[in-house]
Formats: sequence, structure tokens, C-alpha cells
Amino acid sequence: MDDFDADTAIDATGTESLAGVITGRWSIADRPNGGYLMAMGVRALATALPHPDPLTVTGHFLRSPVAGPMTAEVESIREGRTVSTGQARLFQNGREFLRLIGTFGDLRAAEGVTDIQVKPPGMPDLEDCIRAAPDGLLPDGTLISIMQRLDVRMAPDALGWLRGEPADRAEVRAWIRFRDGGSASLVSLALIVDAVAPAVLSAGHRGSVPTIELTTHFRGHPAPGWLRLVTRTRALIDGYLDEEAEIWDSEDRLVATGRQFARLAGAGE
Amino acid sequence: MDDFDADTAIDATGTESLAGVITGRWSIADRPNGGYLMAMGVRALATALPHPDPLTVTGHFLRSPVAGPMTAEVESIREGRTVSTGQARLFQNGREFLRLIGTFGDLRAAEGVTDIQVKPPGMPDLEDCIRAAPDGLLPDGTLISIMQRLDVRMAPDALGWLRGEPADRAEVRAWIRFRDGGSASLVSLALIVDAVAPAVLSAGHRGSVPTIELTTHFRGHPAPGWLRLVTRTRALIDGYLDEEAEIWDSEDRLVATGRQFARLAGAGE
Repeated sequence: MDDFDADTAIDATGTESLAGVITGRWSIADRPNGGYLMAMGVRALATALPHPDPLTVTGHFLRSPVAGPMTAEVESIREGRTVSTGQARLFQNGREFLRLIGTFGDLRAAEGVTDIQVKPPGMPDLEDCIRAAPDGLLPDGTLISIMQRLDVRMAPDALGWLRGEPADRAEVRAWIRFRDGGSASLVSLALIVDAVAPAVLSAGHRGSVPTIELTTHFRGHPAPGWLRLVTRTRALIDGYLDEEAEIWDSEDRLVATGRQFARLAGAGE
Repeated sequence: MDDFDADTAIDATGTESLAGVITGRWSIADRPNGGYLMAMGVRALATALPHPDPLTVTGHFLRSPVAGPMTAEVESIREGRTVSTGQARLFQNGREFLRLIGTFGDLRAAEGVTDIQVKPPGMPDLEDCIRAAPDGLLPDGTLISIMQRLDVRMAPDALGWLRGEPADRAEVRAWIRFRDGGSASLVSLALIVDAVAPAVLSAGHRGSVPTIELTTHFRGHPAPGWLRLVTRTRALIDGYLDEEAEIWDSEDRLVATGRQFARLAGAGE
């Protein structure tokens, strides 16, 4: 079993009550990555709905859990022929930390018109990109365990801020794959859409960027191989910001998009 | 009281149980506009949360209601110092038709950095735009009552498909204001973000476009005057599509963005 599948496993303890473990293996310092928590929420939703694939899932982040046991309560809201909608509530120590609502369907059975109006991102070659935290450590020794699970190769222009040369654009481009050789599944895109440092940092802004809400659209099962992730922030207004993400697979197909609403918190907060 | 405020009124009948009326005044034929229903959901959420302004609200559309009475059940999920999160369920005849989750805050009290990385849309002058359904009727006589409430001036390139000359891009640009002279409020942006025909039609595709999920980010209280709305679809894949929207106010401020996940349904469905 891949790291990702093992670390997002959800056990049904009853019809609507589930249990799982938030591992410390997908964290930034002691904070589990938001996309990792979303992926666990998608797994929980999947237990409640008859359709196999998430299509669109929204999560509202209520507080930060730590590594350790969690439970989930799920609800099937409506089950239709082509799509079904459900809700999941994730708890730790009796306190809800993430509420999700999602609609599932069957992407492989979808029949209809295709018209892609966007192109895959222009990317520097892999060998010209910079491997993010290859040992999973920041220069100050902070453990970024998620980077021990993901192989992330960043386009250099997104990293200029680390040497005091921020870019004009709040944009990050990266090649991403799992380090254990596991192929990206549809569910894993819920993680990958949120797997790199906030794009707003690339434009020279400072602080932590807690996610308030994250919505992922799942557009296709990814082909094996490297994924390309592009994230960008359109507007930071009075400390609130959006961040959009696109994930393209090795066959140049758009497989997921994300959009989140977040806050740029001061270093002192 | 403005038309919009009157037609989205929600009465608290108990702590968590609310009542309202879906008017037939914001419809396309006999279908209430999805943005109008979202606005009613935002009103319902507002009754449950201590903060004044919606920041990000997601709705999943479960079935189409008709004009007539509705009820709502609301829940406060978490109330923090700067933001609070809640859920609303909207019912008609005992059947849930819309489930929303949203986080509220106080935009006027927000303090933080501003860095806008996008520009207001290039728009044709008002007098060069085409007034959509000035009498609220389609050529075939279908009543589009929402167009009796909104004054919508469309950039001509989005309407070429009506004469068999679709555009290359799935994009719509329009000037919008309320016909009754009412100023757009923050809540009304939940309506306006979804107020024009789907952008995918502008690129020559045919069918109805039922919304599955719509998320609106509320970025600022709009100034009085004309709003500018731009919508575009990035990817129609096997019949599923995204649609993004930006709303800019008369002072060139980005006041809301939307993103929806929808389906292009065949004419026969």
C-alpha cells in the first residue's frame, strides 16, 4: 500500500461514524497539511456515497488538529443517478476541526463535450528546478515531514524571496510526485493541490497563511508520472487572499483545480 | 426597501428554524436563479453567525425549487474572534434543495496587507453594449423575470452565438445594476456572480447548464454605481465544466469572485 493510501485510511466503525489516524508524516512542523486533512475528508465522504469519484469538495477549516486519532461523522444528503452529495465532519478530542461538503460522480462514465480553453503551464525542465527540502528539513532544522513524502521540484522564480529577491507575481510552479513511487490517485489530488508554500510568499509577503476554505474540483484520473502544479494569488485585500491551483498530469490533461480563501497572518499572531 | 432586499427576506421563526418566500421575480422561465437562492442562503447563514459579512460561501444544489414558501435550518459551527462558520439547509415542501456552508467576518474591520495582482476587465463602453432582454422576454416569449430586476449590458462578443457566430473564448463581460435604483450590497453579489447566461454558451456549446456547486468569495462592499461582471469557463471536460466570475465595482475594486462546478446537459435531458 502506498504511503498516501495508508496514511489516509478511514475505518467505518458504524454506518455514519468513522475513525482514522492523522499521521505526523504529512506535516509542516507540527501542523498537518491542510490538503492532507482534505484528503482524509474525501475518504470519509466516499464511505457515505454510492458514486466512486469526488467531483467537487469544499472544506472549512475550523481549528488545527495535531497528529493522532480522529473520528468522522458522515451524512448522505442526496443520491441521484449521476451525482450524489454528502457531508463529513472531522473531529479530534470531540472538537470538530474540518467540515466538508462534496458531490461525487463517476468521471470515467462521464459522457459529454470537451473543450479545454487553457493550456498546460510553461515549466522549466526538471533539471533546472530546485528540489524543495530534499531531506525534509528547513535551514533552521524545522521538520517538514510532507517533503519526506513528496518530491517537489520548484521553478526557481518562485524561490527568489528566500534570498531577498521576491518575484513580481504571486505564483508557484512545481513538478510533483510521491517519493515512494506511488502513482497519484484522484483522491491524492486533494493533497497535492495544497502541497506547496503559499504563492503569496513568492511575491515577498511574510507571515503564516492559514486556510479558511478550500474547494477542489476533480477533473480526471491522473496518468502515472510527474504532475505539474501551478498556484497563484490574484488578490490580497486587507490581509485576506485567494489562491488558485491547477494540476496537470504527464499526458497534458488538467486533472484538478483548487481555490482557497485564506488569511495572511502576521508573524506575531 | 429594495426589490432585492424584499425578495430575499428571511424571518427567524425560532433559534435555528427560518422561513422565507422564493419569489418568481428572479427566475429564468420557472426556475429561480441559482445566485438568488444562494443569496437567500447567505441571509439565512447571517442569522446564525455573529459576524456581519460573508467571506466565503459554498452551496451545493440538490434540486430545483419553484417560486413559493421555503424554510431553512441553520447551525453555527464555530464562532471565533475574527471569523465564524455556519451551515444552512434550505427546504421546500420538506425536501432540501440547497446546502450551504460559509465563513463570515467583518470586511470593514479587516486590517492587513493589500496586493492586487489582477486588473479590472477591459470593457466596451456602456453605449456599445447590448441590453439583455430589456423587456424580460426571450425572442420566443419565455419570461426571464430576473432581467426585469437587473439591467444587464452585455459586451457584444459574448452574444455572437445567438446569430450563429460563437466566439473562440467561453467568456462573458457585462455591466450590471439593479433596475430599481437600489445599490448593490455585499449580499447581492451572491446573486450577481451568477446572473448572466453561462459563458460556455458564448463558445457555441448548446444545452442547459445546471450548477452543481457554487462558491463565492466576498472581497469588499461595492461602491454605488455600475458593476462589471466577467465570467469564463476554463475547461469543459466530458460534459462537466467550471465557471469563474469576477465582479468589479465603479471604483475599480474587486468586490467578489465566484467559481462553480456545473454540467452541460443535452437539450433532450
